[in-house]
Amino acid sequence: MHNLVILLAHGSTDESWSDTFKQFTHSARAKYPNTKLAYMELSTPSLSHAVESAVKDGYQSITILPLFLAKGKHLRHDIPKQLAVLKKKFAIEIDLLPPLGEQAELALAVELIIDRHIK
Amino acid sequence: MHNLVILLAHGSTDESWSDTFKQFTHSARAKYPNTKLAYMELSTPSLSHAVESAVKDGYQSITILPLFLAKGKHLRHDIPKQLAVLKKKFAIEIDLLPPLGEQAELALAVELIIDRHIK
Repeated sequence: MHNLVILLAHGSTDESWSDTFKQFTHSARAKYPNTKLAYMELSTPSLSHAVESAVKDGYQSITILPLFLAKGKHLRHDIPKQLAVLKKKFAIEIDLLPPLGEQAELALAVELIIDRHIK
Repeated sequence: MHNLVILLAHGSTDESWSDTFKQFTHSARAKYPNTKLAYMELSTPSLSHAVESAVKDGYQSITILPLFLAKGKHLRHDIPKQLAVLKKKFAIEIDLLPPLGEQAELALAVELIIDRHIK
């Protein structure tokens, strides 16, 4: 397999904040071993480091799923800017998906959670 | 039905940021009409306003699902503090669920999204 999935979280100075994202990555890796977690800022590994590693590991393309609920300035500006630099630096295809919150599966998950808790 | 579900988002000065959360609420309301959206800060209606309205509307209990991926200082400190004040002020039962990101449905949604996009 030559495609790497990067789950991209915001990052935080609070170590325990990352636990949820590590858990997502752990369960996704059980099914898709080529999945890694990276952070936009404040935590490691950084997106830049993850892309550099992917190139070294011989991946030919990267699919990034932002672990963000909504598209704020990070997804509209900061991340595309980081990706433009990385695409220029490394000869690798990078596909940025809409954030988690904009995927149909999320709205369904919200309904299922309500269903499980209020019935 | 005497229980109100409040979907509680962070809030933002960026108006368009809320669109995703409005969309969640819209789809949830199609199935659970007693669902409302509120914000911890920066956007309206505030959590406090939503709880006050619920009391006026005769709801006997409120279930809050935080539309947050991870538990940071807001969910560990700010929101419980707001809820303690509201519970004291209004005679209403309030149940705070773990955030969206800690619900099993979310990890599954991440897997389904990867599945849909990389196959």
